[in-house]
Amino acid sequence: MERYSGVLAPVITPFKKDLTPDKERLIAHSRWILSKGANLAVFGTNSEANSLSVNEKIDLLEHLVFSGISGESLMPGTGCCALSDTIQLTKHCIELSCRGVLMLPPFFYKGISDDGIFGFYAEVIEQVADENLSIYLYHIPPISQIPISTSLIERLANRYPINIAGIKDSSGDWNQTAEFNQLGIPDFRVFCGSESFLLQNMHAGGAGCISATANVNPLPISELYKNWNRESADKSQEKLNQIRMIFQSFPMIPALKAATGIYSKQMEWNTVRPPLMALSVKEIASLKAQLDQVNFSMEGLAN
Amino acid sequence: MERYSGVLAPVITPFKKDLTPDKERLIAHSRWILSKGANLAVFGTNSEANSLSVNEKIDLLEHLVFSGISGESLMPGTGCCALSDTIQLTKHCIELSCRGVLMLPPFFYKGISDDGIFGFYAEVIEQVADENLSIYLYHIPPISQIPISTSLIERLANRYPINIAGIKDSSGDWNQTAEFNQLGIPDFRVFCGSESFLLQNMHAGGAGCISATANVNPLPISELYKNWNRESADKSQEKLNQIRMIFQSFPMIPALKAATGIYSKQMEWNTVRPPLMALSVKEIASLKAQLDQVNFSMEGLAN
Repeated sequence: MERYSGVLAPVITPFKKDLTPDKERLIAHSRWILSKGANLAVFGTNSEANSLSVNEKIDLLEHLVFSGISGESLMPGTGCCALSDTIQLTKHCIELSCRGVLMLPPFFYKGISDDGIFGFYAEVIEQVADENLSIYLYHIPPISQIPISTSLIERLANRYPINIAGIKDSSGDWNQTAEFNQLGIPDFRVFCGSESFLLQNMHAGGAGCISATANVNPLPISELYKNWNRESADKSQEKLNQIRMIFQSFPMIPALKAATGIYSKQMEWNTVRPPLMALSVKEIASLKAQLDQVNFSMEGLAN
Repeated sequence: MERYSGVLAPVITPFKKDLTPDKERLIAHSRWILSKGANLAVFGTNSEANSLSVNEKIDLLEHLVFSGISGESLMPGTGCCALSDTIQLTKHCIELSCRGVLMLPPFFYKGISDDGIFGFYAEVIEQVADENLSIYLYHIPPISQIPISTSLIERLANRYPINIAGIKDSSGDWNQTAEFNQLGIPDFRVFCGSESFLLQNMHAGGAGCISATANVNPLPISELYKNWNRESADKSQEKLNQIRMIFQSFPMIPALKAATGIYSKQMEWNTVRPPLMALSVKEIASLKAQLDQVNFSMEGLAN
């Protein structure tokens, strides 16, 4: 299968009031994102993936696929602290024909050497042992605290050229994304972790973005991806940045859920799993007011 | 059941060459530790607990208990990133009559508020809903990056006085341990995370220590615990520090495993799960030479 390009949303995970995942709302939200031109990086950081057990993730993934969402549009996050969890979840993704997986490095131990991280990814690849395994490495040092160095990427891609497909860069540092784009590894797909860098990333030869706000603003982001080479691109980027800034002024995950709750009129969307906290009523009102000011909407969202 | 005091070892987890856990060696090593007067904090940081899936942990725990090791001697680590994992594992520990559990805060997201951490522990306690649940909080900011503040402890102990039993302080900062000892919460048990602070902790009213090196040096550490009030205590502490310094000069977990391998003549003990790396042959020889110099041994270890 062709490697990923374009825009992917780390799909937010809806919970019921008892904190169990709400499968039907996940399917509905995923379909809405797909209808707006973005694909589905379920079980990302913004999906509260690490607040879900492996069994919960497998159950949700099966529901997505059995409901008719193609594995071709899915890039589930599968990197866990535990080697065994990462292998089990990754194997399941392959069985469900997912076109790729986004893989965090193991993130519990700190100060881990490149040899140790290589050992982890190598063991996963060897044990999954499938040429359909397409891994997008996940560089997010502000949260994982475990950076993925360019020399580690080169070593992995050199050893497993079929399996190492690209990287998501959530460092927030454009110079880092630029460096990943200059690696010169054949068909290596570089995604920025925020649409604020989308235009820059496309000019640098990148593949697209995997961004939190693609949960709420997927169509304009996808349109910039398609039209990055046109004159209108700078203005589109500016407009995307404006909306992102609003969301960024709140804790991101609860803000994405609050907006989805506002526009779907399903206030259960506000539920997050601890240790995250839902926005307060006051914060939700402030978010709504700011979004109204820029005429933001989430058109077509099911009520 | 009475709350814990004394010395506990975060029992190292033996792996076979295929990286699956070796149940029989775990039981043998646990029995050896018990025979030297220490109890078992299985699934701690030094147990590579976060490199194991919840199912692997449950399987190992059942084997320990079904092999005749009493729940009274077990303080399993149960804190995972995911609320659902933490609840499942903790419930299982209660079913197996574990006298206590050591609970990391959720450690994936960074910059989490005390309210968020409180929400996590509260949800676990409410869902486990068992007066036999006895939680020792795990303060280990160098690795978890999520500190447990004194005001959070007070809030938790105030709300759940039966369930909040104590804390393990692996901050490495004696002033922090001293502060935990001054909280004034009734019967709140403070364990230092290294035997280097054991004597100080006992003088400050602490309950003992939960220390990596109790895997290899349990008898002398337990003896200092018993005799901390005697004149000989300073000298014993000095001797403990000397041995700890040797282990600390290597990556701790592989060094504990290497020593256990040397003295049990079972070199499979060197196996760690990635991202950790085993000591090199040269490092193992150097560790052995340094331990020989201080006449270190692990008497009675099964071959």
